[in-house]
Amino acid sequence: MNRADMVRYQTLYRNELFDSVIPFWLNHSLDCENGGYYSCLDRNGTVFDTDKYAWMQGREIWMFSKLCSIYGKKQNWLDAAALGVDFMRTHGRSENGDYYFALDKEGNPLTAPYNIFTDCFMCVAFAEYFRASGDKQAGEEAVEIYRRIQERKDNPKGVWTKGIASTRNLNGMAFPMIQMMMARELRGLIPQETLLPIIHRNLDVFFSLHVDRNRKRVFERVLPDGGRLLSVMEGRLLNSGHALEILWFVMDLADSVLQDQKMVEDCADIMLWCVESGWDKEHGGLFYYQDYYGYPTDKIESDMKLWWVHNEAVLAMLLATKLTGSTLHEVWFRRLNDYSFDHFADRAFGEWFGYLDRQGKPAFGLKGGKWKGFYHLPRMLMTCEGWLRDMMEQTSINT
Amino acid sequence: MNRADMVRYQTLYRNELFDSVIPFWLNHSLDCENGGYYSCLDRNGTVFDTDKYAWMQGREIWMFSKLCSIYGKKQNWLDAAALGVDFMRTHGRSENGDYYFALDKEGNPLTAPYNIFTDCFMCVAFAEYFRASGDKQAGEEAVEIYRRIQERKDNPKGVWTKGIASTRNLNGMAFPMIQMMMARELRGLIPQETLLPIIHRNLDVFFSLHVDRNRKRVFERVLPDGGRLLSVMEGRLLNSGHALEILWFVMDLADSVLQDQKMVEDCADIMLWCVESGWDKEHGGLFYYQDYYGYPTDKIESDMKLWWVHNEAVLAMLLATKLTGSTLHEVWFRRLNDYSFDHFADRAFGEWFGYLDRQGKPAFGLKGGKWKGFYHLPRMLMTCEGWLRDMMEQTSINT
Repeated sequence: MNRADMVRYQTLYRNELFDSVIPFWLNHSLDCENGGYYSCLDRNGTVFDTDKYAWMQGREIWMFSKLCSIYGKKQNWLDAAALGVDFMRTHGRSENGDYYFALDKEGNPLTAPYNIFTDCFMCVAFAEYFRASGDKQAGEEAVEIYRRIQERKDNPKGVWTKGIASTRNLNGMAFPMIQMMMARELRGLIPQETLLPIIHRNLDVFFSLHVDRNRKRVFERVLPDGGRLLSVMEGRLLNSGHALEILWFVMDLADSVLQDQKMVEDCADIMLWCVESGWDKEHGGLFYYQDYYGYPTDKIESDMKLWWVHNEAVLAMLLATKLTGSTLHEVWFRRLNDYSFDHFADRAFGEWFGYLDRQGKPAFGLKGGKWKGFYHLPRMLMTCEGWLRDMMEQTSINT
Repeated sequence: MNRADMVRYQTLYRNELFDSVIPFWLNHSLDCENGGYYSCLDRNGTVFDTDKYAWMQGREIWMFSKLCSIYGKKQNWLDAAALGVDFMRTHGRSENGDYYFALDKEGNPLTAPYNIFTDCFMCVAFAEYFRASGDKQAGEEAVEIYRRIQERKDNPKGVWTKGIASTRNLNGMAFPMIQMMMARELRGLIPQETLLPIIHRNLDVFFSLHVDRNRKRVFERVLPDGGRLLSVMEGRLLNSGHALEILWFVMDLADSVLQDQKMVEDCADIMLWCVESGWDKEHGGLFYYQDYYGYPTDKIESDMKLWWVHNEAVLAMLLATKLTGSTLHEVWFRRLNDYSFDHFADRAFGEWFGYLDRQGKPAFGLKGGKWKGFYHLPRMLMTCEGWLRDMMEQTSINT
C-alpha cells in the first residue's frame, strides 16, 4: 500500500471512531439511572428496548477499557466502563457465580446462565478494566471467571443442553476461538505457561479440524475426528465472517506471539478462500451464512449483509496486507472498505447500520440491538487505525 | 363472491393440491428405507438434509391421514401416513415418553424433548391416523399423549427453561392456540365435557389477553393480567400470520361448535386489523414479524415474506367471506390469493417457495426445510377448496 493511502485510511478510521462511533455510544447507551448499558439503539440513538443483554454489557466494558489502554485514560471512558462493571458486579451473577444471559433494566435476571460466552466476555471485560483502572479486584474477578470457564468448558450449556452428543457430536468453532482470545487478553493475569498450551491446543483444533485444505473452506461445525458431516445442513455451514475473525486473530498471534511467518502466510491463503467464496458476485458484500453445497442453510437470514462480518473481513485483509505485502489482499481490503463505508456507515446520524438486505439496503435502522453493541465496529476502527500507523512508521523507516 | 369465481378458485385450489403439492411430497419426502419423512427438499425435490424433525413428522402424518378423512381413503396416502407412524413409534419417544425434537435419518435422537409442540403435533397425528386407518392403538396413543401434555403444560420446557418467570412472565399465544386445535382434533377420543371447558378457557385467554381493542392489534406475548410490556421488543412483537391462523380457527369454532355469530363477526373485524397493519404497502405481501411501535424486532428476518403467513391469511379471509359475506374480506382474499400464486407458487417444479425477500423474490429455492413441511400449504388448499364447495352449494340452494 502506498503511503498516501495509509494516511487516508488511517484518518478515515480514526475519525470514524472518534467522531461517529464513540460519541454515539457515550450519548445513547449509558443508563446513568440504573447502571449498565442499553444496547438497543435505533437510527438516531433512541432506546427501543431497555433490557440489558450480558454479552453487550461485557463487550462494552471491554471496549471502553481498551480505548483507555490504547489511547490513554480518559475520564469519561473510564466512567463509562465503571458503569457496566458496577452493574454487572451487583446484578450479573447467578447464585453459583455464572453470569445470567440477560437482565432487565433494573438488573433483575431475565435469562438463565445457559450461555458460557457471556462469562467469556465478562472475563476479558474485567481483565481490561483492571488494566485501564488499576482496580485490583477486577483483575481477581477476571482470573476467577477464567477458572470457572475452564471447569465448565466440557459441558458449557449444563442442564440446558439440548443436543444429544451420543448421536452426533459436532464441535463448533466459536469456543476454540474465544479460548484463544481469552488467553491473549489474560496475559499478565494468568501465567504464560498456563496460557501458551491453551493457545497451541486451540490452534491445533482450528487448523486440523475446521480448516479443510481439500475443499478450501473453513467449516463451522466438524466431527471430533476431523471428519465432515455433509449430509446435513449443520455440517455444511459456512460463515465467512466468523472464519475471517478467527483468521486475523490467529495471524496476529502467529506474528506477535509465536513469530511464525509460515503460519502468517498460511492464514493469508485461507483468508482468500473465505472472501472469494463468501462474496456476493451479484450484489456485492459478504453473505452471512452459506451452505458448502450451495443448498439453503437453516438460517433464513443467510443472504443478508451484516456489519460485523464486514468489520472482521476488513481487519483480516488489512492485517494480511501489513504482514505479507500481498497486493491480492490489499485489493480485497479496498473492496471491503469501500463496500462497508458505502453501505453500512450512516452519515446522517453516525454509527453504522447493522443489517442490510442482500441488495445492500438497511433492513432496519438499528445501530444497536440484542446482538449489536459497542464492539465489532469500534474494535475494527481502533485496530485498523493502529495497524495503519504501524505501516506508516515502517514506511518512514524504510525510506 | 359470485359463483363463477367460486368455481374458478375451487378448481385452482383443488388442482394445486392434487397436481402440484401432494405429488411433490409423495415423490420426494418418503424415506422408504428408514421410515419417516425427509422434509428438507430443494426446489426440484432433492433431499438436502436427511435429519427427521419431529414437528414435520407429526404434521405430515396428520396431513396424509386428513386427506383420507376428507377425500376418502387412498392406499398411497395411508401408506405414507403409516411410514411416519411406524418411524415415530419406534424412535420418536424418550424414556419418559416425551417426543424428541429431532432424530437422524435412522431414528437416533438428536435433540432432547424440550419442545412440547412436538407432542402436540404427534397427538393430533395419531388421532387423525386412527380415524383414517381404524388403528385403535393410534387412538389410544393420541389420548395418552394428550394427557401427558396437560400434565406438562404449566412447565412445558421443563429443565430446558431459560426464562426466569419471577422477573418476567410473558405468555405466548402459541400454546392457547394449539390447545384449541387439539381439543378440536380429539373430538370422539376425549369426552366433549372435558374438551369444551378447555376451548372456552383458551378462547378467554385469546380475547381477554392477546386481543387489544384499544390498540387494534393482536399481541403475541402478554402479561398474565392482560397488561402490555411495551418497553421491550418481546412485549411489542406482532405476527400477523400467527394471529390470522388463530382467528380463522376461532371463527370456525364459533361457527361450527359454539354457533356464536357475534364471535364470528368479531373475529372478522380483528382479522382486518391484522391484514391492514401487516401488509407491506411498498412491495406487497404480509410481513413476517413487526414491532408495535415500528422499531426493529429481535428477528432480523422480520421483513421477509413467508408462505405460511400467506396460507393462514388466505384461509382467514376466505372463511370471513363465507361466514359474513363481507366484501372487504373478499377483496383481501383476492389480493392475498393473487400475491401468493404470483410469488410463492413454483410452476416449473411444483409446490411453493417458502421464503421470499421483502421484494417478493425467493430467498432460496427450498420447498421444505426444518420448519416447512407437508402442512400449512396443503391444509390451506384442502380447507379452502372445501369451503368453496360449501359456498357453491349454498349458492345453488339460494338460487
